Amino acid sequence: MNNTTETPVTVIGLGRMGQALASTFLKAGHPTTVWNRTASKADQLVAEGALLAPTVSDALKSGSLTIVCVTDYQAMHRLLGADDIELDGMTLVNLTSGDSAQAREAAQWAEQRGARYLDGAIMAIPPAIGTAEATILHSGPQADFEAHKATLDALGTVTYLGADHGLASLYDVAGLAMMWSVLNAWLQGTALLRTAGVDAVTYAPFAQQIAAGVAEWLPRHAEQVDSSSFPAEVASLETHVRSMAHLIEESEAVGVNTELPKLIKAMADRAIAAGHGGEQYSVLIEEFSQPRND
Amino acid sequence: MNNTTETPVTVIGLGRMGQALASTFLKAGHPTTVWNRTASKADQLVAEGALLAPTVSDALKSGSLTIVCVTDYQAMHRLLGADDIELDGMTLVNLTSGDSAQAREAAQWAEQRGARYLDGAIMAIPPAIGTAEATILHSGPQADFEAHKATLDALGTVTYLGADHGLASLYDVAGLAMMWSVLNAWLQGTALLRTAGVDAVTYAPFAQQIAAGVAEWLPRHAEQVDSSSFPAEVASLETHVRSMAHLIEESEAVGVNTELPKLIKAMADRAIAAGHGGEQYSVLIEEFSQPRND
Repeated sequence: MNNTTETPVTVIGLGRMGQALASTFLKAGHPTTVWNRTASKADQLVAEGALLAPTVSDALKSGSLTIVCVTDYQAMHRLLGADDIELDGMTLVNLTSGDSAQAREAAQWAEQRGARYLDGAIMAIPPAIGTAEATILHSGPQADFEAHKATLDALGTVTYLGADHGLASLYDVAGLAMMWSVLNAWLQGTALLRTAGVDAVTYAPFAQQIAAGVAEWLPRHAEQVDSSSFPAEVASLETHVRSMAHLIEESEAVGVNTELPKLIKAMADRAIAAGHGGEQYSVLIEEFSQPRND
Repeated sequence: MNNTTETPVTVIGLGRMGQALASTFLKAGHPTTVWNRTASKADQLVAEGALLAPTVSDALKSGSLTIVCVTDYQAMHRLLGADDIELDGMTLVNLTSGDSAQAREAAQWAEQRGARYLDGAIMAIPPAIGTAEATILHSGPQADFEAHKATLDALGTVTYLGADHGLASLYDVAGLAMMWSVLNAWLQGTALLRTAGVDAVTYAPFAQQIAAGVAEWLPRHAEQVDSSSFPAEVASLETHVRSMAHLIEESEAVGVNTELPKLIKAMADRAIAAGHGGEQYSVLIEEFSQPRND
């Protein structure tokens, strides 16, 4: 039985992620209404206690908070954009994947319809929803976030980023870029070491230690970026570039991929060509902040 | 005064790193002999208690362990390769920067001359030598490492990697690839977030958390690599690629560099083209393990 003192919520969109969200709300005791274009995807949730709404309009009316988790922003606008759908006074939390421009446009659209709107991004896979490992980013008006934080907390580690609705998408892709980069650097190293007969499992703790160690430098490096001042406290970019050449040479010598090593060096080479050879690595923010010109 | 119960050591090459090594041995109580082509670089060390040898031969005879830290392997061979230099019975620890092939060749050369040889790589800047933050990698015969570990321990966190003399160089460049990749991904994210008015200092802890979190996955992913089996336990490569497209779109939309995002996606696209779209990210080891073919 649901504990009816918990806030009623609505979940629109029951793909794997939407199902995980609805199921988690049910387990946390929230009366949960669901809707999906293909109603049969709600079967399991109904068995768990969810109410299946016959229409999107009905679903919206059932909860004081509506979570939208559909294929893309176009799908959201198709579902919620019709004139006969009443959004006035509703609160929408849109966890659909998209980019920052779509999030900002959706916020304007929702505001025109009289709705409160938060944009979000889920940095987790469906099975992790409801655990602390699921990081869920939110951006939009802080008061709207605070009003529903206690409910959203059921979903995982819920973070508020700021009033700009585009922030959740931007942090999401930035975080993913870090994820792929750590994995790719580990794969580059693994490929190199395997040519010398070193197992991936043997090398992994070394890569793990370096990644975690370098991560600790970021706040200090960030101060240099914010002050646009890059004194070579640790090592100059020119010193780095000599080691980057070794990385390329080793990769070529043992016959593994050299694309990542070459990109690393190309970015640094351009910063040196721009006159930054005697400065700290973080001066590369100038290369990363502009499209490639040549 | 030096504590003469400590092992006598010799340091050949007194650049900034060689000076830091010799100074650290002196502070740890080791009778320390030094030699450098330009003798004046030894002045400060002599003031700290070092003995300046008049020739390389004299320097080698003074210590039971000789650390070599010169410009490159060519410089080492020029200094120690002359016929009149006696290496028989000596132990050389070569901390000169180079690649794995140079390390293996140097090991053969030293063996032919009757010397014991360890190759090493210093993952630290000179001021960190003598602290736990200075990681110093060693490879070569384990018995030779064990015989001198107590002495080498004075220099920092001293690690033994295996009998293959090339391992220190390979781990070194692999670790550096991780370092640059974490920094670059952080810079990509910082560039993205700054377009929304978010300071680098505000974004850095988020990037730090992601990097450290992903680092913890590596041992598990490494098991997949070693077993050449990549079931999509978490998310399939195809799911990743959709988010990679978002990263490129966001980077283009806000006008920051797209080279790193495009490389990330290109590697994954090729793995999908090779039939791995339904597998886990670590299947990309196959792309990283071969030169680019197209």
